[in-house]
Amino acid sequence: MLNQKADLDRLFNALADPARRAMVERLSHGPAPVSELAKPLPMSLPSAMQHLGVLEAAGLVRSEKVGRVRTCSIEPGALSLAEQWINARRTQWEHQLDRLGAYLANLPEEEPDNAG
Amino acid sequence: MLNQKADLDRLFNALADPARRAMVERLSHGPAPVSELAKPLPMSLPSAMQHLGVLEAAGLVRSEKVGRVRTCSIEPGALSLAEQWINARRTQWEHQLDRLGAYLANLPEEEPDNAG
Repeated sequence: MLNQKADLDRLFNALADPARRAMVERLSHGPAPVSELAKPLPMSLPSAMQHLGVLEAAGLVRSEKVGRVRTCSIEPGALSLAEQWINARRTQWEHQLDRLGAYLANLPEEEPDNAG
Repeated sequence: MLNQKADLDRLFNALADPARRAMVERLSHGPAPVSELAKPLPMSLPSAMQHLGVLEAAGLVRSEKVGRVRTCSIEPGALSLAEQWINARRTQWEHQLDRLGAYLANLPEEEPDNAG
């Protein structure tokens, strides 16, 4: 449980930056070398690699070096964890709405107010 | 687009803390006064209220003061925004998998290696 909390901390923190989300967006279309991930971002390559490190530490991205090229891929399981957490909240909230709806439907009808 | 980026930054950042996620979990079961949200958390009331401020700034929670009691409720639209972003990544990734599957299915069958 503690571990899952820490995982979610790292996961949501990793997604809280536009450069890192841009990398995840790019990688959800398929693997890419680091240079291609960094190219569209308004920052130096070392900065981009720092962001990549945050994504890897969060388990969202893995990378592999073959020869001189480091290629990155998405780790869809990590995104699923974030998705599950949000889905669970929505399910709870919808359940609460259903209960409210059932309660309102079972209220006795109010007498029309004939005053005036 | 810029605004949505900033929204997602605030949203994911707000969810990157266990105390704030605990508040969102509690509120997805229904509205609650600030004191009830703060009670289970291992921190002072002022610290809890700071976390609440982050959730409000991210649009995840709204609060209303009636008399001396401030009551908080969840804002499900904000969670939906985060959910949509993650869903979109998953859709892209699944589409990529489908294309890979189709590609592999259409490869000509390899001749069995009869050497040895």
